[in-house]
Amino acid sequence: MKGTVTIAGLGPGNDAMVTPEVTEALARATDIIGYIPYVARVAERPGLTLHPTDNRVELDRALHALQLAANGAQVVVVSSGDPGVFAMASAVFEAIETHPEYVETDIRVLPGITAMLAAAAAAGAPLGHDFCAINLSDNLKPWNVIEHRLRMAARGDFAMAFYNPRSKSRPHGLEKTLAVLLEECGPDRLITFARAVSTPDQALRTVTLGEATPEMADMRTVVIVGNAATRRVGRYVYTPRSAS
Amino acid sequence: MKGTVTIAGLGPGNDAMVTPEVTEALARATDIIGYIPYVARVAERPGLTLHPTDNRVELDRALHALQLAANGAQVVVVSSGDPGVFAMASAVFEAIETHPEYVETDIRVLPGITAMLAAAAAAGAPLGHDFCAINLSDNLKPWNVIEHRLRMAARGDFAMAFYNPRSKSRPHGLEKTLAVLLEECGPDRLITFARAVSTPDQALRTVTLGEATPEMADMRTVVIVGNAATRRVGRYVYTPRSAS
Repeated sequence: MKGTVTIAGLGPGNDAMVTPEVTEALARATDIIGYIPYVARVAERPGLTLHPTDNRVELDRALHALQLAANGAQVVVVSSGDPGVFAMASAVFEAIETHPEYVETDIRVLPGITAMLAAAAAAGAPLGHDFCAINLSDNLKPWNVIEHRLRMAARGDFAMAFYNPRSKSRPHGLEKTLAVLLEECGPDRLITFARAVSTPDQALRTVTLGEATPEMADMRTVVIVGNAATRRVGRYVYTPRSAS
Repeated sequence: MKGTVTIAGLGPGNDAMVTPEVTEALARATDIIGYIPYVARVAERPGLTLHPTDNRVELDRALHALQLAANGAQVVVVSSGDPGVFAMASAVFEAIETHPEYVETDIRVLPGITAMLAAAAAAGAPLGHDFCAINLSDNLKPWNVIEHRLRMAARGDFAMAFYNPRSKSRPHGLEKTLAVLLEECGPDRLITFARAVSTPDQALRTVTLGEATPEMADMRTVVIVGNAATRRVGRYVYTPRSAS
């Protein structure tokens, strides 16, 4: 049987948000590859080998998937959220670029519910108009690129969603981000910290930029900043469909 | 029984991309409200009333949902894709703002696979790094706002996804958009036209901005523009995870 690599999104955490096509791909897999907590979401069964790996080894993981598929395996690379949003899909294509012997691999990317859209749904509709998604991790890009993108997004009056706002190894990125946004957008702009959305640990908090502090986010948080028109209605936060 | 309004995303078209929580909400609904082709995706059954309506009546539709819920109905407002991305969620909150008597309504937003992420998955991973989502329809915002956002997104070197790139009533928006992008990004930037993704009519085409013409899109197309580093590998298009 010809090997395949399927890069599948498990959504933000709740199995009720896993699409049927992803469930079916997992059921047909011979090998599951991914970061430890994501592989842990897949049930063990006879004929299935789980390959959990640590964080920050995305390219090794991608290459491993391609090697297994070359030997006939039905490999599923699992990401949380959507695999095409700051996740494993790009890593697999980067690995193919540096190992062109795998360019004919049968690859499928199966979308998932990405964290910012689950967070937006839980909060109301803060991404209801033009928006940007920005990865605040400076592992793969310098801070000046992040700062420039924040300013362009703010000057375009985009709503914004931030992935990886904070980690132990990057304690100051969110602090600098909040300072840039305060300067560009003023203190009254709404900002939502959405932690562990769709899991039992879900916690949402909306404050103004003037009130926001870096401690409101951790590794499991997605941050959403409204545009100039974003407002509260009842217990919800939403961005109207028309320009502000 | 207390009425509820659930705003649910049906994904881009393929039922294999409908999440289990959305399927369950549809199974418990007494009333389905939405644009005609989306309501047509819900099977008729005893005890369920379908309320299909035409396009451009989003606020009437939202108010109708709130009125039915106030009378005890379990209403599901259906959107294609994700209801929080250029769809019905914001319209429901706008309706509550102008009709505060409904502010206590029990509202849930259920995310779905939004068109740009299904399109990106079908193409490879063109949204694998920081990106923007822009609605090109000028029904609800003037062209100068769209043009400004295009320029800010290009100058921030964001990848971009465009919703509603073209319709009979707006024949020139995409032409102007392509001209702005050509000026900002140059002729070699990759652009993907993804039509009817996940349906039997799916068609993907990737060209350079220098080759792109407005006729490559229609009402059912999502357009994805890469950032400066976006490239082809084999038959895929992807954006690497690091800054260009």
